[in-house]
Amino acid sequence: VNALERRLARLESERDLARLAAEYCHGADDRQIETFLAVWEPDAVWDVGPHRFTGVAEIEAAVRRQWDAFDGMLHTTSNPVIEFDTESLARGRLDVVSVAVLADGRRVLTTGRYDDVYARGADGWRIRERRAVVTTSTELPAPPG
Amino acid sequence: VNALERRLARLESERDLARLAAEYCHGADDRQIETFLAVWEPDAVWDVGPHRFTGVAEIEAAVRRQWDAFDGMLHTTSNPVIEFDTESLARGRLDVVSVAVLADGRRVLTTGRYDDVYARGADGWRIRERRAVVTTSTELPAPPG
Amino acid sequence: VNALERRLARLESERDLARLAAEYCHGADDRQIETFLAVWEPDAVWDVGPHRFTGVAEIEAAVRRQWDAFDGMLHTTSNPVIEFDTESLARGRLDVVSVAVLADGRRVLTTGRYDDVYARGADGWRIRERRAVVTTSTELPAPPG
Repeated sequence: VNALERRLARLESERDLARLAAEYCHGADDRQIETFLAVWEPDAVWDVGPHRFTGVAEIEAAVRRQWDAFDGMLHTTSNPVIEFDTESLARGRLDVVSVAVLADGRRVLTTGRYDDVYARGADGWRIRERRAVVTTSTELPAPPG
Repeated sequence: VNALERRLARLESERDLARLAAEYCHGADDRQIETFLAVWEPDAVWDVGPHRFTGVAEIEAAVRRQWDAFDGMLHTTSNPVIEFDTESLARGRLDVVSVAVLADGRRVLTTGRYDDVYARGADGWRIRERRAVVTTSTELPAPPG
Repeated sequence: VNALERRLARLESERDLARLAAEYCHGADDRQIETFLAVWEPDAVWDVGPHRFTGVAEIEAAVRRQWDAFDGMLHTTSNPVIEFDTESLARGRLDVVSVAVLADGRRVLTTGRYDDVYARGADGWRIRERRAVVTTSTELPAPPG
Protein backbone atom coordinates (compact mmCIF):
# COMPACT_ATOMS: atom_id res chain seq x y z
CA VAL A 1 0.00 0.00 0.00
CA ASN A 2 2.81 2.46 0.74
CA ALA A 3 4.23 2.06 -2.73
CA LEU A 4 0.78 2.49 -4.24
CA GLU A 5 0.23 5.59 -2.15
CA ARG A 6 3.48 7.13 -3.42
CA ARG A 7 2.53 6.47 -7.03
CA LEU A 8 -0.93 7.91 -6.45
CA ALA A 9 0.51 11.00 -4.74
CA ARG A 10 2.75 11.59 -7.75
CA LEU A 11 -0.22 11.51 -10.11
CA GLU A 12 -2.06 13.91 -7.80
CA SER A 13 0.92 16.28 -7.83
CA GLU A 14 0.93 16.22 -11.62
CA ARG A 15 -2.80 16.92 -11.61
CA ASP A 16 -2.31 19.81 -9.17
CA LEU A 17 0.48 21.28 -11.32
CA ALA A 18 -1.71 21.08 -14.42
CA ARG A 19 -4.38 22.95 -12.51
CA LEU A 20 -1.87 25.60 -11.44
CA ALA A 21 -1.07 26.20 -15.11
CA ALA A 22 -4.77 26.51 -15.88
CA GLU A 23 -5.53 28.88 -13.01
CA TYR A 24 -2.67 31.17 -14.08
CA CYS A 25 -4.28 31.49 -17.52
CA HIS A 26 -7.82 31.90 -16.20
CA GLY A 27 -6.73 34.46 -13.63
CA ALA A 28 -4.82 36.48 -16.22
CA ASP A 29 -7.47 36.24 -18.96
CA ASP A 30 -10.55 36.74 -16.75
CA ARG A 31 -8.74 39.49 -14.83
CA GLN A 32 -9.42 37.80 -11.53
CA ILE A 33 -6.54 39.05 -9.41
CA GLU A 34 -7.13 36.62 -6.52
CA THR A 35 -7.06 33.63 -8.86
CA PHE A 36 -3.95 34.94 -10.61
CA LEU A 37 -1.99 35.73 -7.45
CA ALA A 38 -2.92 32.45 -5.72
CA VAL A 39 -0.74 30.45 -8.12
CA TRP A 40 2.48 32.11 -6.91
CA GLU A 41 4.65 31.65 -3.85
CA PRO A 42 4.95 34.95 -1.90
CA ASP A 43 8.54 35.47 -3.12
CA ALA A 44 7.98 34.08 -6.61
CA VAL A 45 9.86 35.32 -9.66
CA TRP A 46 8.06 36.08 -12.94
CA ASP A 47 10.63 36.57 -15.67
CA VAL A 48 9.12 37.92 -18.87
CA GLY A 49 11.94 38.61 -21.27
CA PRO A 50 13.56 41.93 -20.45
CA HIS A 51 11.58 42.28 -17.21
CA ARG A 52 11.84 40.29 -14.00
CA PHE A 53 9.26 40.69 -11.24
CA THR A 54 9.96 39.42 -7.74
CA GLY A 55 7.29 38.88 -5.12
CA VAL A 56 3.53 39.02 -5.48
CA ALA A 57 3.34 42.82 -5.16
CA GLU A 58 5.53 43.30 -8.24
CA ILE A 59 3.73 40.47 -10.01
CA GLU A 60 0.36 42.08 -9.32
CA ALA A 61 1.56 45.45 -10.65
CA ALA A 62 2.91 43.74 -13.77
CA VAL A 63 -0.27 41.85 -14.61
CA ARG A 64 -2.33 44.99 -14.05
CA ARG A 65 -0.14 46.83 -16.58
CA GLN A 66 -0.86 44.00 -19.06
CA TRP A 67 -4.56 44.42 -18.40
CA ASP A 68 -4.24 48.16 -19.13
CA ALA A 69 -2.29 47.50 -22.34
CA PHE A 70 -4.67 44.95 -23.90
CA ASP A 71 -8.41 44.89 -24.43
CA GLY A 72 -8.39 41.12 -23.93
CA MET A 73 -6.21 38.03 -23.88
CA LEU A 74 -6.57 34.27 -24.07
CA HIS A 75 -3.72 31.95 -23.11
CA THR A 76 -3.72 28.27 -23.96
CA THR A 77 -1.14 25.85 -22.60
CA SER A 78 -0.04 22.52 -23.98
CA ASN A 79 2.56 19.79 -23.75
CA PRO A 80 3.46 19.93 -20.05
CA VAL A 81 6.60 18.06 -19.04
CA ILE A 82 7.24 17.91 -15.29
CA GLU A 83 10.40 16.67 -13.58
CA PHE A 84 10.34 16.11 -9.84
CA ASP A 85 13.52 16.90 -7.92
CA THR A 86 11.73 15.83 -4.73
CA GLU A 87 8.07 15.27 -3.85
CA SER A 88 7.81 18.99 -3.04
CA LEU A 89 10.04 20.58 -5.69
CA ALA A 90 9.58 20.23 -9.43
CA ARG A 91 10.50 21.83 -12.71
CA GLY A 92 8.15 22.12 -15.66
CA ARG A 93 8.00 23.25 -19.23
CA LEU A 94 4.80 24.14 -21.09
CA ASP A 95 4.07 25.46 -24.55
CA VAL A 96 1.84 28.51 -24.82
CA VAL A 97 -0.22 30.12 -27.56
CA SER A 98 -1.98 33.38 -26.78
CA VAL A 99 -4.24 35.76 -28.64
CA ALA A 100 -4.21 39.35 -27.38
CA VAL A 101 -6.58 42.11 -28.52
CA LEU A 102 -5.02 45.56 -28.90
CA ALA A 103 -6.89 48.77 -28.15
CA ASP A 104 -7.47 49.37 -31.90
CA GLY A 105 -8.93 45.90 -32.42
CA ARG A 106 -5.88 44.28 -34.02
CA ARG A 107 -4.94 40.90 -32.59
CA VAL A 108 -1.53 39.49 -31.80
CA LEU A 109 -0.97 35.73 -31.97
CA THR A 110 2.01 34.80 -29.80
CA THR A 111 3.74 31.46 -29.36
CA GLY A 112 6.20 30.64 -26.63
CA ARG A 113 6.93 28.54 -23.63
CA TYR A 114 7.09 28.65 -19.85
CA ASP A 115 10.09 27.29 -17.98
CA ASP A 116 8.92 26.84 -14.40
CA VAL A 117 9.97 25.86 -10.91
CA TYR A 118 7.20 24.69 -8.55
CA ALA A 119 7.33 24.11 -4.81
CA ARG A 120 4.83 22.49 -2.47
CA GLY A 121 4.14 24.09 0.90
CA ALA A 122 1.37 23.91 3.47
CA ASP A 123 -1.18 25.19 0.93
CA GLY A 124 -0.15 22.88 -1.89
CA TRP A 125 1.83 23.48 -5.05
CA ARG A 126 2.73 27.02 -6.10
CA ILE A 127 4.87 28.57 -8.86
CA ARG A 128 8.25 29.56 -7.46
CA GLU A 129 9.64 30.83 -10.74
CA ARG A 130 8.21 31.21 -14.22
CA ARG A 131 10.29 32.30 -17.18
CA ALA A 132 8.17 33.17 -20.22
CA VAL A 133 9.97 32.91 -23.57
CA VAL A 134 8.26 34.28 -26.69
CA THR A 135 9.18 32.44 -29.89
CA THR A 136 6.89 34.17 -32.43
CA SER A 137 4.53 37.14 -32.40
CA THR A 138 2.27 37.75 -35.39
CA GLU A 139 -0.19 40.57 -35.93
CA LEU A 140 -3.58 39.54 -37.27
CA PRO A 141 -6.00 41.94 -38.97
CA ALA A 142 -8.76 43.55 -36.91
CA PRO A 143 -12.22 42.21 -37.66
CA PRO A 144 -14.21 44.42 -40.03
CA GLY A 145 -15.83 47.19 -37.93
CA VAL B 1 -7.32 1.04 0.94
CA ASN B 2 -10.70 2.79 0.98
CA ALA B 3 -9.06 6.19 1.13
CA LEU B 4 -6.69 5.21 -1.70
CA GLU B 5 -9.63 3.99 -3.75
CA ARG B 6 -11.43 7.31 -3.33
CA ARG B 7 -8.36 9.27 -4.45
CA LEU B 8 -7.88 6.94 -7.42
CA ALA B 9 -11.56 7.25 -8.40
CA ARG B 10 -11.23 11.03 -8.36
CA LEU B 11 -8.26 10.89 -10.75
CA GLU B 12 -10.24 8.52 -12.98
CA SER B 13 -13.17 10.93 -13.02
CA GLU B 14 -10.85 13.75 -14.06
CA ARG B 15 -9.44 11.54 -16.80
CA ASP B 16 -12.95 10.64 -17.97
CA LEU B 17 -13.96 14.32 -18.05
CA ALA B 18 -10.86 15.20 -20.09
CA ARG B 19 -11.85 12.50 -22.53
CA LEU B 20 -15.39 13.85 -22.73
CA ALA B 21 -13.96 17.22 -23.76
CA ALA B 22 -11.83 15.51 -26.41
CA GLU B 23 -14.68 13.39 -27.82
CA TYR B 24 -16.87 16.49 -28.16
CA CYS B 25 -14.19 18.11 -30.33
CA HIS B 26 -13.47 14.97 -32.36
CA GLY B 27 -17.16 14.29 -32.91
CA ALA B 28 -17.81 17.85 -34.05
CA ASP B 29 -14.69 18.16 -36.21
CA ASP B 30 -14.79 14.67 -37.78
CA ARG B 31 -18.57 14.97 -38.24
CA GLN B 32 -19.17 11.71 -36.41
CA ILE B 33 -22.65 12.22 -35.05
CA GLU B 34 -22.60 9.19 -32.73
CA THR B 35 -19.36 10.35 -31.10
CA PHE B 36 -20.66 13.88 -30.76
CA LEU B 37 -24.04 12.95 -29.28
CA ALA B 38 -22.58 10.39 -26.87
CA VAL B 39 -20.98 13.13 -24.76
CA TRP B 40 -24.34 14.62 -23.76
CA GLU B 41 -27.01 13.60 -21.24
CA PRO B 42 -30.37 13.04 -22.98
CA ASP B 43 -31.75 16.33 -21.60
CA ALA B 44 -28.51 18.28 -21.89
CA VAL B 45 -28.36 22.00 -22.59
CA TRP B 46 -25.96 23.48 -25.17
CA ASP B 47 -25.92 27.23 -24.79
CA VAL B 48 -24.07 28.97 -27.62
CA GLY B 49 -24.47 32.68 -27.17
CA PRO B 50 -27.83 33.80 -28.48
CA HIS B 51 -29.02 30.20 -28.99
CA ARG B 52 -29.84 27.54 -26.40
CA PHE B 53 -30.47 23.96 -27.45
CA THR B 54 -32.14 21.51 -25.07
CA GLY B 55 -32.03 17.74 -25.48
CA VAL B 56 -30.04 15.67 -27.91
CA ALA B 57 -32.50 16.12 -30.80
CA GLU B 58 -32.05 19.91 -30.75
CA ILE B 59 -28.31 19.48 -30.21
CA GLU B 60 -28.06 17.18 -33.22
CA ALA B 61 -29.94 19.64 -35.43
CA ALA B 62 -27.67 22.46 -34.22
CA VAL B 63 -24.41 20.67 -34.93
CA ARG B 64 -25.66 19.61 -38.37
CA ARG B 65 -26.38 23.28 -39.16
CA GLN B 66 -22.77 24.07 -38.17
CA TRP B 67 -21.57 21.32 -40.49
CA ASP B 68 -23.60 22.87 -43.32
CA ALA B 69 -22.25 26.34 -42.60
CA PHE B 70 -18.54 25.46 -42.52
CA ASP B 71 -16.30 23.50 -44.85
CA GLY B 72 -14.27 22.32 -41.86
CA MET B 73 -13.47 23.01 -38.22
CA LEU B 74 -10.83 22.12 -35.65
CA HIS B 75 -11.40 22.73 -31.95
CA THR B 76 -8.59 22.58 -29.41
CA THR B 77 -9.20 22.67 -25.67
CA SER B 78 -6.83 23.69 -22.91
CA ASN B 79 -6.58 24.59 -19.25
CA PRO B 80 -9.34 22.43 -17.76
CA VAL B 81 -10.36 23.27 -14.20
CA ILE B 82 -12.84 20.84 -12.65
CA GLU B 83 -14.68 21.29 -9.34
CA PHE B 84 -16.57 18.35 -7.89
CA ASP B 85 -19.80 19.09 -6.05
CA THR B 86 -20.18 15.36 -5.40
CA GLU B 87 -18.53 12.28 -6.88
CA SER B 88 -21.19 12.30 -9.62
CA LEU B 89 -21.69 16.02 -10.26
CA ALA B 90 -18.98 18.44 -11.33
CA ARG B 91 -18.46 21.80 -12.92
CA GLY B 92 -15.70 22.58 -15.39
CA ARG B 93 -14.16 25.39 -17.33
CA LEU B 94 -12.00 24.95 -20.43
CA ASP B 95 -10.38 27.33 -22.86
CA VAL B 96 -10.99 26.78 -26.56
CA VAL B 97 -9.32 27.85 -29.78
CA SER B 98 -10.94 26.85 -33.05
CA VAL B 99 -10.17 27.32 -36.72
CA ALA B 100 -13.20 27.17 -39.05
CA VAL B 101 -13.02 27.10 -42.84
CA LEU B 102 -15.72 29.12 -44.62
CA ALA B 103 -17.23 28.06 -47.94
CA ASP B 104 -15.04 30.61 -49.80
CA GLY B 105 -11.85 29.35 -48.20
CA ARG B 106 -11.40 32.10 -45.64
CA ARG B 107 -10.63 30.91 -42.12
CA VAL B 108 -11.94 32.19 -38.82
CA LEU B 109 -9.78 31.85 -35.71
CA THR B 110 -12.00 31.93 -32.62
CA THR B 111 -11.04 31.99 -28.95
CA GLY B 112 -13.40 31.32 -26.10
CA ARG B 113 -14.28 29.11 -23.22
CA TYR B 114 -16.69 26.43 -22.13
CA ASP B 115 -18.49 26.64 -18.79
CA ASP B 116 -19.76 23.14 -18.12
CA VAL B 117 -21.79 20.98 -15.76
CA TYR B 118 -21.10 17.24 -15.84
CA ALA B 119 -23.07 14.40 -14.26
CA ARG B 120 -22.23 10.74 -13.83
CA GLY B 121 -24.89 8.13 -14.48
CA ALA B 122 -24.96 4.42 -15.25
CA ASP B 123 -22.95 4.99 -18.46
CA GLY B 124 -20.34 7.23 -16.92
CA TRP B 125 -19.78 10.98 -17.11
CA ARG B 126 -21.79 13.08 -19.55
CA ILE B 127 -22.17 16.81 -20.24
CA ARG B 128 -25.33 18.10 -18.56
CA GLU B 129 -24.82 21.71 -19.65
CA ARG B 130 -22.25 23.48 -21.79
CA ARG B 131 -22.18 27.23 -22.22
CA ALA B 132 -19.83 28.35 -25.00
CA VAL B 133 -18.54 31.92 -24.70
CA VAL B 134 -16.65 33.46 -27.64
CA THR B 135 -14.04 36.02 -26.63
CA THR B 136 -12.45 36.84 -30.02
CA SER B 137 -13.13 35.96 -33.63
CA THR B 138 -10.57 36.87 -36.30
CA GLU B 139 -10.76 36.33 -40.03
CA LEU B 140 -7.62 34.95 -41.64
CA PRO B 141 -6.87 35.17 -45.36
CA ALA B 142 -7.75 32.26 -47.62
CA PRO B 143 -4.73 30.33 -48.84
CA PRO B 144 -3.66 31.26 -52.38
CA GLY B 145 -5.88 29.32 -54.79
CA VAL C 1 -4.83 -4.09 -3.91
CA ASN C 2 -4.26 -5.85 -7.22
CA ALA C 3 -7.31 -4.22 -8.77
CA LEU C 4 -6.19 -0.83 -7.44
CA GLU C 5 -2.72 -1.40 -8.84
CA ARG C 6 -4.14 -2.13 -12.28
CA ARG C 7 -6.22 1.05 -12.26
CA LEU C 8 -3.23 3.06 -11.07
CA ALA C 9 -1.00 1.55 -13.76
CA ARG C 10 -3.53 2.53 -16.41
CA LEU C 11 -3.48 6.16 -15.23
CA GLU C 12 0.32 6.07 -15.24
CA SER C 13 0.31 4.76 -18.81
CA GLU C 14 -1.96 7.60 -19.87
CA ARG C 15 0.34 10.07 -18.13
CA ASP C 16 3.36 8.53 -19.87
CA LEU C 17 1.64 8.73 -23.27
CA ALA C 18 0.77 12.39 -22.69
CA ARG C 19 4.42 13.00 -21.92
CA LEU C 20 5.48 11.21 -25.10
CA ALA C 21 3.28 13.60 -27.08
CA ALA C 22 4.87 16.54 -25.30
CA GLU C 23 8.46 15.34 -25.79
CA TYR C 24 7.83 14.87 -29.53
CA CYS C 25 6.81 18.53 -29.78
CA HIS C 26 9.62 19.82 -27.57
CA GLY C 27 12.23 17.75 -29.40
CA ALA C 28 11.02 18.96 -32.80
CA ASP C 29 10.57 22.59 -31.80
CA ASP C 30 13.72 22.96 -29.69
CA ARG C 31 15.71 20.98 -32.27
CA GLN C 32 16.93 18.54 -29.64
CA ILE C 33 17.54 15.43 -31.70
CA GLU C 34 17.99 13.09 -28.72
CA THR C 35 14.67 14.17 -27.20
CA PHE C 36 12.93 13.84 -30.55
CA LEU C 37 14.30 10.42 -31.41
CA ALA C 38 13.72 9.00 -27.91
CA VAL C 39 9.94 9.02 -28.43
CA TRP C 40 10.10 6.47 -31.27
CA GLU C 41 10.53 2.70 -31.36
CA PRO C 42 13.62 1.75 -33.42
CA ASP C 43 11.42 0.54 -36.32
CA ALA C 44 8.78 3.21 -35.96
CA VAL C 45 6.82 4.64 -38.89
CA TRP C 46 6.26 8.38 -39.31
CA ASP C 47 3.67 8.94 -42.00
CA VAL C 48 3.38 12.59 -43.02
CA GLY C 49 0.99 12.79 -45.93
CA PRO C 50 2.79 11.86 -49.13
CA HIS C 51 5.92 10.72 -47.28
CA ARG C 52 6.40 7.73 -45.02
CA PHE C 53 9.58 7.33 -42.99
CA THR C 54 10.50 3.98 -41.44
CA GLY C 55 13.04 3.55 -38.66
CA VAL C 56 14.81 6.18 -36.60
CA ALA C 57 17.49 6.88 -39.23
CA GLU C 58 14.88 7.93 -41.81
CA ILE C 59 12.94 9.79 -39.13
CA GLU C 60 16.06 11.70 -38.09
CA ALA C 61 16.80 12.69 -41.70
CA ALA C 62 13.19 13.82 -42.14
CA VAL C 63 13.10 16.03 -39.06
CA ARG C 64 16.44 17.57 -40.00
CA ARG C 65 15.01 18.50 -43.42
CA GLN C 66 12.12 20.20 -41.59
CA TRP C 67 14.62 22.11 -39.47
CA ASP C 68 16.39 23.26 -42.65
CA ALA C 69 13.11 24.32 -44.27
CA PHE C 70 11.77 26.43 -41.40
CA ASP C 71 13.25 29.15 -39.24
CA GLY C 72 11.18 27.95 -36.29
CA MET C 73 8.16 25.91 -35.31
CA LEU C 74 5.84 25.47 -32.35
CA HIS C 75 3.52 22.48 -32.07
CA THR C 76 0.69 22.34 -29.57
CA THR C 77 -1.33 19.19 -28.93
CA SER C 78 -4.81 18.85 -27.50
CA ASN C 79 -7.70 16.47 -26.98
CA PRO C 80 -5.88 13.16 -26.57
CA VAL C 81 -8.04 10.04 -26.77
CA ILE C 82 -6.22 6.79 -25.97
CA GLU C 83 -7.59 3.27 -26.46
CA PHE C 84 -5.69 0.35 -24.94
CA ASP C 85 -5.64 -2.89 -26.89
CA THR C 86 -3.53 -4.40 -24.11
CA GLU C 87 -1.54 -2.94 -21.24
CA SER C 88 1.43 -2.57 -23.61
CA LEU C 89 -0.26 -1.61 -26.90
CA ALA C 90 -2.46 1.42 -27.44
CA ARG C 91 -3.85 3.66 -30.11
CA GLY C 92 -4.23 7.40 -29.78
CA ARG C 93 -5.56 10.41 -31.53
CA LEU C 94 -4.50 13.99 -30.81
CA ASP C 95 -5.34 17.33 -32.34
CA VAL C 96 -2.46 19.58 -33.34
CA VAL C 97 -2.02 23.26 -34.09
CA SER C 98 1.39 24.47 -35.24
CA VAL C 99 2.92 27.78 -36.18
CA ALA C 100 5.93 27.58 -38.51
CA VAL C 101 8.18 30.49 -39.44
CA LEU C 102 9.35 30.55 -43.08
CA ALA C 103 12.76 31.85 -44.12
CA ASP C 104 11.20 35.14 -45.27
CA GLY C 105 9.42 35.71 -41.97
CA ARG C 106 5.94 34.68 -43.06
CA ARG C 107 4.18 32.28 -40.72
CA VAL C 108 2.05 29.28 -41.48
CA LEU C 109 -0.70 28.26 -39.08
CA THR C 110 -1.50 24.57 -39.56
CA THR C 111 -4.22 22.45 -37.98
CA GLY C 112 -4.35 18.68 -38.06
CA ARG C 113 -4.29 15.52 -36.07
CA TYR C 114 -2.06 12.61 -35.18
CA ASP C 115 -3.31 9.04 -35.45
CA ASP C 116 -0.90 6.97 -33.37
CA VAL C 117 0.03 3.49 -32.28
CA TYR C 118 2.05 3.17 -29.06
CA ALA C 119 3.86 0.16 -27.64
CA ARG C 120 5.44 -0.41 -24.25
CA GLY C 121 8.80 -2.15 -24.04
CA ALA C 122 11.59 -2.43 -21.51
CA ASP C 123 12.17 1.35 -21.67
CA GLY C 124 8.53 2.34 -21.38
CA TRP C 125 6.05 3.62 -23.92
CA ARG C 126 7.22 4.62 -27.39
CA ILE C 127 5.52 5.69 -30.63
CA ARG C 128 5.28 2.72 -33.00
CA GLU C 129 3.45 4.62 -35.72
CA ARG C 130 2.34 8.21 -36.16
CA ARG C 131 0.24 9.36 -39.07
CA ALA C 132 0.05 13.17 -39.32
CA VAL C 133 -2.99 14.52 -41.15
CA VAL C 134 -3.12 18.23 -42.04
CA THR C 135 -6.64 19.69 -42.14
CA THR C 136 -5.88 23.38 -42.79
CA SER C 137 -2.82 25.46 -43.57
CA THR C 138 -3.08 29.27 -43.50
CA GLU C 139 -0.38 31.80 -44.27
CA LEU C 140 -0.13 34.69 -41.83
CA PRO C 141 1.57 37.99 -42.60
CA ALA C 142 5.19 38.49 -41.60
CA PRO C 143 5.64 40.91 -38.70
CA PRO C 144 6.62 44.43 -39.79
CA GLY C 145 10.40 44.43 -40.30
